[in-house]
Amino acid sequence: MLKLYYVPGTCALASHIALQEAGASYTTERLDFKTNQQQSPQYLAVNPKGRVPALVTDHGTLTETPAILGFIAQSFPLAKLAPLEDPFALAQLQSFNSYLCSTVHIAHAHKGRGYRWASDEASFADMKRKVPETMAASFALIERGMLKGPWVMGETYTVCDPYLFTLTRWLAGDSVDLSTLPKVADHHRRMSERPAVQKVLAEETA
Amino acid sequence: MLKLYYVPGTCALASHIALQEAGASYTTERLDFKTNQQQSPQYLAVNPKGRVPALVTDHGTLTETPAILGFIAQSFPLAKLAPLEDPFALAQLQSFNSYLCSTVHIAHAHKGRGYRWASDEASFADMKRKVPETMAASFALIERGMLKGPWVMGETYTVCDPYLFTLTRWLAGDSVDLSTLPKVADHHRRMSERPAVQKVLAEETA
Repeated sequence: MLKLYYVPGTCALASHIALQEAGASYTTERLDFKTNQQQSPQYLAVNPKGRVPALVTDHGTLTETPAILGFIAQSFPLAKLAPLEDPFALAQLQSFNSYLCSTVHIAHAHKGRGYRWASDEASFADMKRKVPETMAASFALIERGMLKGPWVMGETYTVCDPYLFTLTRWLAGDSVDLSTLPKVADHHRRMSERPAVQKVLAEETA
Repeated sequence: MLKLYYVPGTCALASHIALQEAGASYTTERLDFKTNQQQSPQYLAVNPKGRVPALVTDHGTLTETPAILGFIAQSFPLAKLAPLEDPFALAQLQSFNSYLCSTVHIAHAHKGRGYRWASDEASFADMKRKVPETMAASFALIERGMLKGPWVMGETYTVCDPYLFTLTRWLAGDSVDLSTLPKVADHHRRMSERPAVQKVLAEETA
């Protein structure tokens, strides 16, 4: 049995949607950032990093979105969520997810989590001011060359799609106008129409 | 044929060592940060991100270290550089590499690349001051729970090992004392003794 720990609005949404798309049997547990629940002793015993998502499996706990998404794709091969047997195509998928994780998510995190990398309030404000620029630049690269369309990898829906969908949802709050990114906007609309996405969003916002 | 673009001292070393360990046929091209060669029109045509590493393959170009390492492991299965058929173990490997890429490398990058996330000199100085603390915290987590020993994944050498080795080499410059991390230090010593590592380092420093 699989159990996903998540906080609404975070990158855990990508893994949540992927589990649903895979047809997996899973349960979820919602943590509350407001009470700093991700740093509670109970949760640190699950994930010493004190972050979400964490996916508890029969073999142990997994963290880091690209790894969880790869695990879901490989564990539910009938859902065809990744080109598992094609080393180049699979690496392209992992490269896309790695970019989201190490460049796009990191750019966004400088808005509210500057204390991870600096100590002064003035630095936090400086970082926060730059987020619209770095998020726009990251998504310009996605729009120009990385999103093949209609899905990230082309004609086939993969685990890249819920991850891109999740980070696209942050753009408005980061002062990036989605209408300047027509391919990303089209992707976001298509994603919003999928039953699995609607079901998961309904649960996370309930 | 495979061709790796690299800059000495960067995370591209991980992919370089992995190619050598895999017994791959490959060539390399060294870029020079001093002349900003990674932002030249010629290189941007190879990798629009303007970063290293980039691995040119017969099918196209790959970027992002975790993806390149996964590609090498899957393309040269006889080298047994990843538990390809075990979804949980493979996800653990990807999780480790994802942590290095999105947490450890990012922590380090705030020393010299603060301009990516802020604009003021005072912020860059503030970020730089915090690097010893964030790098020490990242490596403490690796030492305590992530590095199984003797290799990252336990008894078997994988593509996690050259990646950890590469980032461990940054610790001295980031004012983290390797002797406070006995498991990481032992890993570093074992890696330094491997013929593939010695060959690649000799090439990169020639």
